[in-house]
Amino acid sequence: MSHFADRLLHRIQELENPTVVGLDPRLDSIPEFIKDRMVDEYGATLEAVAAAILIFNRGIIDAVSDIVPAVKPQIAFYEQYGHAGMLAYEQTCEYAQQQGMIVIGDAKRNDIGSTAEAYAAGHLGTVDVFGEAQEIIKADALTVTPYLGSDGILPFTRLCAERGKGIFVLVRTSNPSSDEIQGVPVGDELMDEYVAGLVQNWGAELIGESGFSSVGAVVGATYPEEARNLRHRMPEQIFLVPGYGAQGGSAEDVKPCFYKEGKGAIVNSSRGIIFAYQALNMPEEAFDEAARKAALAMKEDLRIVF
Amino acid sequence: MSHFADRLLHRIQELENPTVVGLDPRLDSIPEFIKDRMVDEYGATLEAVAAAILIFNRGIIDAVSDIVPAVKPQIAFYEQYGHAGMLAYEQTCEYAQQQGMIVIGDAKRNDIGSTAEAYAAGHLGTVDVFGEAQEIIKADALTVTPYLGSDGILPFTRLCAERGKGIFVLVRTSNPSSDEIQGVPVGDELMDEYVAGLVQNWGAELIGESGFSSVGAVVGATYPEEARNLRHRMPEQIFLVPGYGAQGGSAEDVKPCFYKEGKGAIVNSSRGIIFAYQALNMPEEAFDEAARKAALAMKEDLRIVF
Repeated sequence: MSHFADRLLHRIQELENPTVVGLDPRLDSIPEFIKDRMVDEYGATLEAVAAAILIFNRGIIDAVSDIVPAVKPQIAFYEQYGHAGMLAYEQTCEYAQQQGMIVIGDAKRNDIGSTAEAYAAGHLGTVDVFGEAQEIIKADALTVTPYLGSDGILPFTRLCAERGKGIFVLVRTSNPSSDEIQGVPVGDELMDEYVAGLVQNWGAELIGESGFSSVGAVVGATYPEEARNLRHRMPEQIFLVPGYGAQGGSAEDVKPCFYKEGKGAIVNSSRGIIFAYQALNMPEEAFDEAARKAALAMKEDLRIVF
Repeated sequence: MSHFADRLLHRIQELENPTVVGLDPRLDSIPEFIKDRMVDEYGATLEAVAAAILIFNRGIIDAVSDIVPAVKPQIAFYEQYGHAGMLAYEQTCEYAQQQGMIVIGDAKRNDIGSTAEAYAAGHLGTVDVFGEAQEIIKADALTVTPYLGSDGILPFTRLCAERGKGIFVLVRTSNPSSDEIQGVPVGDELMDEYVAGLVQNWGAELIGESGFSSVGAVVGATYPEEARNLRHRMPEQIFLVPGYGAQGGSAEDVKPCFYKEGKGAIVNSSRGIIFAYQALNMPEEAFDEAARKAALAMKEDLRIVF
């Protein structure tokens, strides 16, 4: 089990591409020809939904796995379909890993210690199935929410140490109302800056040869000034940066999240890549080709950080 | 669709019991005879785990549904087993509703607006399955985390209004490190007090005939002073109170969460009820009887709030 941050940064350097493709398979944007085929096979059922999601994701993964280091499946878009969706999530993670991609599960989990242990086991560890340790979800990292403090985080960092996994803690999210809590003044700093201090502590013992910790931070592209500030406060954290593209962030906006040579951050794009066939007015059968095109354009756009 | 808060409080009054049983089915505490039977039937598989969880939960639900108003399945203990576990979660929620219990899903979900919509659809609403609206998880309410602010909450409150559902927003959790973020001073108040103000606003348009909102708050029993304070700040919120029993909180500790006549709060106990056969030294075959005994003892213990 190599070190998560080292592994991720190595792959980013190798591909000269600090991006991650968000696998948010909204059913109404998945090409009709895929859905039709699945309905033919399984009927108009949840199984057909799950199969359509998986086939779509495999198409995207096949199209980008040699140019993009990582994928970030957003579990909400799977979980909403219950157990059928969860199976598609598990299969998506496994397939992406098989194709050599790093998998960052976007679940924003959080709970008290003993419950966080169960989340950690399922997403980053193993669970005991009548004496046999089984790995349920094949992911390399998970996003988590800090609201409950250290004892909700430590079950995850333990597995980071033991199994070469990573976490990204929400510090500053990309949505319009993130200021309501994250931007509140706490003494002479803002809440997100205060949380940044906690995150740095949580990651202090998980620093790899790269100088970066396997405890990273989610820092939205939509607040570039705040990102610059957070970059100083969390020198060892890799930033997972949502908000680029469809959410409005530009390459200039994400630049403050990076050090030199594209180090220290990875930028997410979801809709902008996976449903690029719509924006590019390409036929839906070419959804994978369109995704590759968009991924290459994003890589090019982010050249300024290298 | 009646109003969630009204419905919950009505059932609490009817049973004179402001408690909720936490369904946290830790596999190693589930009676061996149930696991053995399931392994005989399904082999030592995830399906056997899921089936054992469901059978155990049904035993608990059958034992308490006429004396306890609600159950709170903690999704982490299901999700850790992947899609098999999710099926057990869905089946547990459905069975509890069929037995007349109110179901509070404990998932602490949180995300940006468009993603929160997917969580809300799955947990409290319906999803579109090729033109047919399907209800995936049969729950009456869900716990959510406020770190992303309003636009992560509104997709849930919309469904509260449309479908008579409820949410409980984390304000003050029961774990030792909850002070790290929730107890931080923000101006002349603490973070949890500040969040209480947000929660009150989020719930302002969802107040029922009972005077209570379908937007409730999670307030841990382990901080009674803070609970008293939060009770004043959120007069319309029903408090979902973890931390009683196994986590150390007493009836005196939870009292500040209540108004007169047991109104305004519901107290959770998980291990203390569902695995009572262990503490009571009863045979594991009597796990259900033990749970009923413990539930009645808890009701008696909480008489002081009525």
